[in-house]
Amino acid sequence: MASAAETDAMRRALRLARNGPRGLNPQVGAVILSPAGDVLAEGYHRGAGTAHAEVDALSKLAPGEARGATAVVTLEPCNHTGRTGPCAVALLEAGVARVVYALDDPTDAAAGGAERLRNGGVDVESGLERDAAEELIRDWVHLQRTGRPRVTVKWAQSLDGRAAADDGSSRWITGRAARRDVHARRAAADAILAGTGTVIADDPALTARDADGAPLERQPIPVVVGETEIPADAAVRRHPREALFFPTRDLGAILDDLGGRGIQTVFVEGGPTLESALVREGLADEVLVYLAPVLLGGSRLALGDLGVPDIASARRLEVASIDILGDDIRVVARPVHDTQGDS
Amino acid sequence: MASAAETDAMRRALRLARNGPRGLNPQVGAVILSPAGDVLAEGYHRGAGTAHAEVDALSKLAPGEARGATAVVTLEPCNHTGRTGPCAVALLEAGVARVVYALDDPTDAAAGGAERLRNGGVDVESGLERDAAEELIRDWVHLQRTGRPRVTVKWAQSLDGRAAADDGSSRWITGRAARRDVHARRAAADAILAGTGTVIADDPALTARDADGAPLERQPIPVVVGETEIPADAAVRRHPREALFFPTRDLGAILDDLGGRGIQTVFVEGGPTLESALVREGLADEVLVYLAPVLLGGSRLALGDLGVPDIASARRLEVASIDILGDDIRVVARPVHDTQGDS
Ligand SMILES: NC(=O)c1ccc[n+]([C@@H]2O[C@H](COP(=O)([O-])OP(=O)(O)OC[C@H]3O[C@@H](n4cnc5c(N)ncnc54)[C@H](OP(=O)(O)O)[C@@H]3O)[C@@H](O)[C@H]2O)c1
Ligand SMILES: NC(=O)c1ccc[n+]([C@@H]2O[C@H](COP(=O)([O-])OP(=O)(O)OC[C@H]3O[C@@H](n4cnc5c(N)ncnc54)[C@H](OP(=O)(O)O)[C@@H]3O)[C@@H](O)[C@H]2O)c1
Repeated sequence: MASAAETDAMRRALRLARNGPRGLNPQVGAVILSPAGDVLAEGYHRGAGTAHAEVDALSKLAPGEARGATAVVTLEPCNHTGRTGPCAVALLEAGVARVVYALDDPTDAAAGGAERLRNGGVDVESGLERDAAEELIRDWVHLQRTGRPRVTVKWAQSLDGRAAADDGSSRWITGRAARRDVHARRAAADAILAGTGTVIADDPALTARDADGAPLERQPIPVVVGETEIPADAAVRRHPREALFFPTRDLGAILDDLGGRGIQTVFVEGGPTLESALVREGLADEVLVYLAPVLLGGSRLALGDLGVPDIASARRLEVASIDILGDDIRVVARPVHDTQGDS
Repeated sequence: MASAAETDAMRRALRLARNGPRGLNPQVGAVILSPAGDVLAEGYHRGAGTAHAEVDALSKLAPGEARGATAVVTLEPCNHTGRTGPCAVALLEAGVARVVYALDDPTDAAAGGAERLRNGGVDVESGLERDAAEELIRDWVHLQRTGRPRVTVKWAQSLDGRAAADDGSSRWITGRAARRDVHARRAAADAILAGTGTVIADDPALTARDADGAPLERQPIPVVVGETEIPADAAVRRHPREALFFPTRDLGAILDDLGGRGIQTVFVEGGPTLESALVREGLADEVLVYLAPVLLGGSRLALGDLGVPDIASARRLEVASIDILGDDIRVVARPVHDTQGDS
């Protein structure tokens, strides 16, 4: 059983972890406690090539100071030798008596740290605040497993599935609450994607803004997808983060490239052609649909061809949530991957 | 203040009213109570040309038996001389001492009964169980005001607004719970409408059925709309109610005709062409949309052209309810009639 001091330390470690960057490495935090439960040192991981959280915390102690101490870490100490040595070994060498961690290492390469520690005589406990630790590195785990960011395809539509009226006007299909929600989700994403069609037609800023239009603190990297050249004076070129341009239609290759840069999540903002292609190619991990209580009819569809010939081939979704935002309905849903071939 | 006996009598009168037909006249029920609160007689209205509920109840009493009694009626006793004399006069002549009614008569022609009774020295009280009484004759009031039935346009669609996959297959976009809900609403409607396109393509029965496919007790009158001749062996011709065929595209004229027959509600079952025309012409009083959590893309739109050129002309809806039925989402919404010209 973890002590109250250890639980406090784990919560602190989870907060510390968020100081590190989202990228190719997971966010990890660590706190070293004295046998009496006092905080001796804190640390977190600052990204690939820098010290792991436990080692960062240990580095703040004088030699011998960690002897008999407890290390509280959000992730199982690693067992592999990368640019830094295995953390399990560092903890053993520092003479730590007990290690409490939240989440087993989900990667094959690094797992085994707990066993190594136990074999070295350390008292090891796992699972404290596991859910929060899982949530913290969920996107990183996805990146780790697939090599690609988690893709959320977002669109706003009328109840009858139109993204705009026949003349192309769409400001505003949805209301304030929905638009605020979109900006909050942009800010939470690592990258924001748009097709050349939208970038040329609308010249969007692709920034995350508050209700008054002021930029939010965190901004996603803008990514423009498609072969068409984007004008030198496009708003996206004045984005606080430097925009990435992918002059290709190979969406899988683009996601591989973004994954290789440590981009864990992308938020796709349109337009219909790019979004339909992502759904058609099975690259959407999540769809986020804002349904406005209006009917538009006409030709401006939110999604075009999805390569679905018959009803049996429908892209089935699992609804994760349905909420009312102002006058609009927000639906979050994820593709159902039929493994059994029936329904 | 109404007594407990009067409240009980009103609830009984509301149930009695439903024994009468839905048609050109409202459903009305009446109970006559002795001064001690005992039920002396009950009555309800059996449709145009027959006795009104109060008169029906009074007719069951011996001359003089209603003297000093209380009449409990779901609707304000009428004041006009139609095929029957004014009920207010009948109540006065019977020597009733008190009248309790639920709802003021919403029609100009018949209103004034309460005043006439008061002028005749009767103690009159109104408003007891008003909401239930309003609900009871809501559709009749609509018919009375507009001369047309209340029109519910129902469709099932994928989240992205398609009624079928590209090959036309749509069985089943939505799940069991949604389909059951549809059949219950068919049974509650006075008529069920379909375009010739759907009748010819699908040969639908247009009946209300239970989960096992057995017909429900109440069946809507099937109505087929469009100029194309329907085959002699079409399933709709074997419907328990005799089908009506309107070989025209003048939807307003059709609704006038149905209204003239005392049809208070119609449930429109498709297809997309007919439903789009109803929405375009502003004839839909309610839309009922079942959203299945699937994406289909492609060309089979649930609604086609609505004559909406720009976003400012969008057909705005007020959402009355959003519910989850099995895996599907049911949205009930009604057109917002902008009176101020802005939003
Ligand atoms: N209502 C809304 O919420 C909303 C949101 C966004 C956009 N919009 C509207 O949507 C319109 C633009 O939409 P759009 O569909 O024309 O543009 P789009 O989806 O933004 O961009 C389409 C372009 O994406 C590129 N692309 C990259 N990979 C592709 C692939 N695998 N398959 C197909 N294309 C790929 C192609 O660019 P290249 O041809 O350059 O290779 C293609 O022409 C604008 O009018 C905009 O206002 C509305
Ligand atoms: N997924 C679903 O829930 C669902 C439900 C119903 C139907 N469907 C599918 O929809 C398809 C049929 O749809 P549809 O749109 O072709 O047929 P529809 O809407 O059933 O019928 C269209 C016909 O309605 C008549 N009509 C009457 N008034 C009209 C007006 N004001 N404007 C235009 N037409 C008027 C016209 O008939 P005339 O030409 O004879 O004058 C027109 O051709 C079928 O494939 C069916 O399977 C799907």
